[in-house]
Amino acid sequence: MSYIHAGKWFHQGRRFCQLTFHNIQNLSPAILGSATCVDRRQLCLVDNNCRRYSQGNGGHQREQSHWKWGLGLAGSLGVVGSILYWKISHQKLHAAEVEAGILKTGLPTFSKTDVAKHKTAESRIWVTYRNGVYDVTDYVSEHPGGNKILLGAGTAIDPFWEMYGVHKQAEIFAVLEKYRIGNITEVEEVKETDKKDPYANDPKRHPALKPASEKPFNAEPPPSLLIYSYLTPNDLFFIRNHLPVPVVDPKTFSLQVAVEKENEGVKLSLDDLKSKFPKKSVTTTIQCSGNRRSEMIKIKSVKGLNWGNAAISTAEWSGVTLDTILKHSGIDIDKADCKHVQFEGMDKGPDGATYGASIPIEIARCLKNEIIIAYAMNGTDIPRDHGYPLRIIIPGIVGARQVKWLNKIVLSNEESSSHWQQRDYKGFNSSTDWHNVDFSKAHAIQELPVVSAICEPAEGQMLDDAEVVTVKGYAWSGGGRGIYRVDVSADGGKTWHEADLNTNNQSPFKAWAWTLWEATVPLPKESKNTLLICKAIDSSYNCQPDSVEGIWNLRGVLSNAWHRVSVTIPDEQR
Amino acid sequence: MSYIHAGKWFHQGRRFCQLTFHNIQNLSPAILGSATCVDRRQLCLVDNNCRRYSQGNGGHQREQSHWKWGLGLAGSLGVVGSILYWKISHQKLHAAEVEAGILKTGLPTFSKTDVAKHKTAESRIWVTYRNGVYDVTDYVSEHPGGNKILLGAGTAIDPFWEMYGVHKQAEIFAVLEKYRIGNITEVEEVKETDKKDPYANDPKRHPALKPASEKPFNAEPPPSLLIYSYLTPNDLFFIRNHLPVPVVDPKTFSLQVAVEKENEGVKLSLDDLKSKFPKKSVTTTIQCSGNRRSEMIKIKSVKGLNWGNAAISTAEWSGVTLDTILKHSGIDIDKADCKHVQFEGMDKGPDGATYGASIPIEIARCLKNEIIIAYAMNGTDIPRDHGYPLRIIIPGIVGARQVKWLNKIVLSNEESSSHWQQRDYKGFNSSTDWHNVDFSKAHAIQELPVVSAICEPAEGQMLDDAEVVTVKGYAWSGGGRGIYRVDVSADGGKTWHEADLNTNNQSPFKAWAWTLWEATVPLPKESKNTLLICKAIDSSYNCQPDSVEGIWNLRGVLSNAWHRVSVTIPDEQR
Repeated sequence: MSYIHAGKWFHQGRRFCQLTFHNIQNLSPAILGSATCVDRRQLCLVDNNCRRYSQGNGGHQREQSHWKWGLGLAGSLGVVGSILYWKISHQKLHAAEVEAGILKTGLPTFSKTDVAKHKTAESRIWVTYRNGVYDVTDYVSEHPGGNKILLGAGTAIDPFWEMYGVHKQAEIFAVLEKYRIGNITEVEEVKETDKKDPYANDPKRHPALKPASEKPFNAEPPPSLLIYSYLTPNDLFFIRNHLPVPVVDPKTFSLQVAVEKENEGVKLSLDDLKSKFPKKSVTTTIQCSGNRRSEMIKIKSVKGLNWGNAAISTAEWSGVTLDTILKHSGIDIDKADCKHVQFEGMDKGPDGATYGASIPIEIARCLKNEIIIAYAMNGTDIPRDHGYPLRIIIPGIVGARQVKWLNKIVLSNEESSSHWQQRDYKGFNSSTDWHNVDFSKAHAIQELPVVSAICEPAEGQMLDDAEVVTVKGYAWSGGGRGIYRVDVSADGGKTWHEADLNTNNQSPFKAWAWTLWEATVPLPKESKNTLLICKAIDSSYNCQPDSVEGIWNLRGVLSNAWHRVSVTIPDEQR
Repeated sequence: MSYIHAGKWFHQGRRFCQLTFHNIQNLSPAILGSATCVDRRQLCLVDNNCRRYSQGNGGHQREQSHWKWGLGLAGSLGVVGSILYWKISHQKLHAAEVEAGILKTGLPTFSKTDVAKHKTAESRIWVTYRNGVYDVTDYVSEHPGGNKILLGAGTAIDPFWEMYGVHKQAEIFAVLEKYRIGNITEVEEVKETDKKDPYANDPKRHPALKPASEKPFNAEPPPSLLIYSYLTPNDLFFIRNHLPVPVVDPKTFSLQVAVEKENEGVKLSLDDLKSKFPKKSVTTTIQCSGNRRSEMIKIKSVKGLNWGNAAISTAEWSGVTLDTILKHSGIDIDKADCKHVQFEGMDKGPDGATYGASIPIEIARCLKNEIIIAYAMNGTDIPRDHGYPLRIIIPGIVGARQVKWLNKIVLSNEESSSHWQQRDYKGFNSSTDWHNVDFSKAHAIQELPVVSAICEPAEGQMLDDAEVVTVKGYAWSGGGRGIYRVDVSADGGKTWHEADLNTNNQSPFKAWAWTLWEATVPLPKESKNTLLICKAIDSSYNCQPDSVEGIWNLRGVLSNAWHRVSVTIPDEQR
C-alpha cells in the first residue's frame, strides 16, 4: 500500500513512527477513521466502524477490535508521532457526527465571553464545539492526547478537531455529548471601528496559534503541536507578517521578472505559472531569525517580538523553479552580470513601501533549481497569511528573505534597499547596542546556523515519571546541512545521550527540512528539579554555542544556544 | 604595477597591508631587497643598494634612504604583515652575501651538539649560518623581528633566511659576522640503524616546524609565523603524515581513474596530467581535524597528536579539475550511479594497506569544478611531505580526505574502507568514551565547523604595553563559508571588539581559504593578568561554541571552542 513505505518510518528510531500528510491523502475513505502506530513494525488503522486494520511488512488484515475514545485514542494520540491530518475531516463520516454540537433546546445559553472565563480546573474547563458548550473538567485526565486538550480551554475546539480529524468519530462525539451543558450564542457582529483598521482584512487564524503581536499578526504554534507532524499543517505554520495581509485578486495578479536598468522584463499571470511550466515541489523548513528570542530577552532587553521556540515550521512547497522562470524571461543566471536577486512583496506600509529582500547571486546560482516560485503549500493554495498567491521559497536560508505575496523578481547589482535588508536581520556581537550599532557594516543574514529545541516537556512541567523522561524536539541547520546528532542531557549537561532522529531520509548535504528527534533519558536520583538540555550537530559538525550570553545581540536574532528546560521530578516513582 | 593592487591590501583593515606570494613573483630583481608596509597607503620596497621605493595610490618614486639591519628591518619585519617570500632568495644578491658564513681559519670549531646547548640567555644564544657559528645573545633585543629570532636558537638559521630572504643583504651579513665566534664541524654521517628505518627516506623538514610526532612525521609551524603570510610557505605548511613518505618515480607514476566493478578505468601519467588538460588553481586552507587538540587534552585525556593551534595552513594548489579527468575517463559524475568518490594514496603501512579516504557524491558533484587533482603547491612541484607528485584538493573539507600521494580515484557505492574513514576522524559527544564508542554509528567528518585562533600574543606572554594589546590570528570555516566577523576580548569576554579582517576578497559563499585578522584592544586597568579571547562568525552566522568541555570527544577532533590565551600586563606603562 502506497501510504506505508520505509521512508515514512523513523528509519533510525526505535520507538516511534510517522504517518504524514502524503500518507493521509492516499488513504481510502473506508479506513479513514483513525490511525495509530503501536510499534515500529506495526501500523494500525481504524475504519469508521472502529474495525482495526494492521499493517506489517506487507499487506493488511482487518482485525475485530472495537475501540472507545479513552481506549482507542490511548493507542493513537497517546503514541507519539501517529498523525492524522485535518484533510480526513473532509471525508464521509458516520451519521452520529451530525448529532454532536447541534443546537439542543432546553439547555442554558452561554456567550463566548462566558465560555472564555472557564479555562482552569478551579473555574471549571469549558469548551465549545459547533453550537454546543461542554464542561470537560472531569474528562481532562482521561484525554489520550494528554494536556493538549487544554489548548482548547475556554474556546472552540472545532479548529483543533478540523486539524486532528481523528476525533471525528461516532464514539467520540458520544463521549463529548456526555459533557454537554448548554448552547453557544451566535457570533458577534464585526465592530464598525474594526472595518477601518488596515488589518481588518487579515484572515482568521487558528486559535492554537500564540500571538507575539496582533497587528501585524505574528504567531507561533504550541511547541508540542509543532513537532506532532513532520509537515506542519498550514493552519499551524508560524506566521511572521511585517504589514497587513494584502488582498490579491488572482485573476488580475501578475509576477514581473526583470534585470534592473535593462527593460521592463516579463509579466506572468498566475494561470501562466500554474499551466505553462513544470511543477516542482520541495520540502523545506522556514525559521524566523528571531526564533527563541525570548531566551535572549531574559539576559538583557532586545528589540523584537517575544518569540518562543516555535517560530519555525516545515511545509512542502510547490511551484516553478527560479531557473525555469528566469530562462523563460531570457535571463541566464549563470551569466547574468548581477550581484543580487531582489524579491518584492505586495504587502505595503502606510508610506506605500512594500516588503522586499534579496539574496546574493552565488546563492541564487547554487540553488537555481531548488528555489521555487511557490503557488502551493502542503498541496493547497498558499493560505493568505503565508503569501497567497505566490511566495519565493529559498531552501536553507532565513524566512525574512523568502518574500510572501511575491510580485516582482529583479536581478540587480545592489542588495534590496528595503529596511528589512539594510537595517534589520543582521548579526552583531554582545558589546554592540543601539548607541554604537552600524547596520551598514554587518552582513544581512542569509543561511542560518544550526539550532535545536526541546518541545516536550514544557518549561516548569511536573514529569510523570521519576526514573526517565522522554524528551522531544526539532533540529535544523541552514544551507542544506543535515543533522548528524542531537545530544540530550537530563542532568544539566553532566551526561549526554544521543537522540533517535527522523531525518525524513534527506541527504545530509541537501537537507532543506528539519530533523525531529526523541530521547528517553534517565533522570538524576534524589533530585526534585533538573535541567533538560539539547544541542545539535549538523553535517559540517557545527554545534550550537553553549550560552545565550555569548551570542546576545541587540535585535535578539540567531538565538541558537543549547536549549534548556527546567522540569520537576515527582517525589515517588509511580 | 601589477604587484600592487587593491585586492592585495587589507581592504577592511586600518593598520596593515599585505604583500603576497604572487606579488613577489612579479617583482623585478632590481627591487627585491626588502619590502615593507609603513602604513595602509604606503608600500615601501628596498632594492639591493638599500634605496627605498615608495608606492602610493599609483606610480612609484625612488627615495634616498640607506637602511641598516636594525633600522631598515624595524620598518619591515617589525611591521605586521610585510612579507617577503623565500623565492626572493633565488634572485641575484650583492657580492657581500658570499662572505657571510664562510669557513674562517683561526676560529674555534663547534659541533651541532655544542651549538644546541646554547638556546637561552643564561647559556648564551648561539646560531649557525652556513659554516659560521654566532653568539647573538647581545643582538636579540635589537632584532626587528622581535623574539622570532629565538626560533633559530641553538640551531641553523639558514632555513629561516631562505624563507625570509629579506635577511640576505650585504648590511645584514655584515652585522651577523660581528657576532661570529667559530666554525661548525661537518654534518654527521647517517647512522646504519637509521637506514633500516621505514622513515629513513622521509624528507628533511624546516627546523621551525614543531613536531607532534617524528615517525610518522607530524608538525606545525610556530603560530606567529603561520599568520605572517596569507599563503603559507611550503616549508612551513603543517605536515600530517600517517605513514612513511613514499618515494615516487615521476616517470613511472600513473593515476588510475575508474568506476568500481565496471572496468580497470583509465591510467594517466604525470606528464599527461600536466600537458593534456587545462590547468586550474585554487587557494584553499587545509586543517587537520585535530587542530587545537591540546586544549581538549587539558580537560581529559584523548587519543591523538598533541596539536597546538597551527595544524592549519593555506596554499595555492594547481592541477586539473576532478570533472575534467572524470570526463576524460568517460565518467559523468552527475549521472554516475555511485554514492562516494574514493581516493587512494601510495603511503603504505607495514601490512601493505595504503591510506585512503572518500567523500560523498553530493560533495563531489557540487565541487566538481573546484576539486583539483593537484601537481603544484604555491607554484612549485608539491613537496614530498605534501603528496608529491599528486594530492587531491577538496576545498572546504577536512585535511584527512584530501589524500596525498594520490594514485587512484574510484567511484563506488561504498565509503572508503580505510581505517581513517571508518574508525577515525568522526565526532562523538562528551559522554562517549572508549568503553562505549561505536564508530559505525557516527558520520565521517567532511566539512569542518567554523574556527579561529589567536596566534599573537602567545600563551603566558608578557605584553609590551599596559594600555592596549594587538591580537592577531586566523579564522576559517568549512564548506566555503567565509568569515563575517571575528570578536576579540581582552577582558575575559566582558567586552568584545570587532577585528579587522583580511578575507583576500573571497566571496563569503565560496571562501575556501582563511581570513587573517588583527584587533588592537584596550587592556583592563589595575589587573596584572588577563584572558584574551577570540571567536569567529561565518557566513551562515555559525559561531564557535563557548567551552571546550561542551565539545570534548575521545579523539580530540573538532576543537573549535572560543580560543583563550592568558597574558601578563606590565605594571607600568612604558
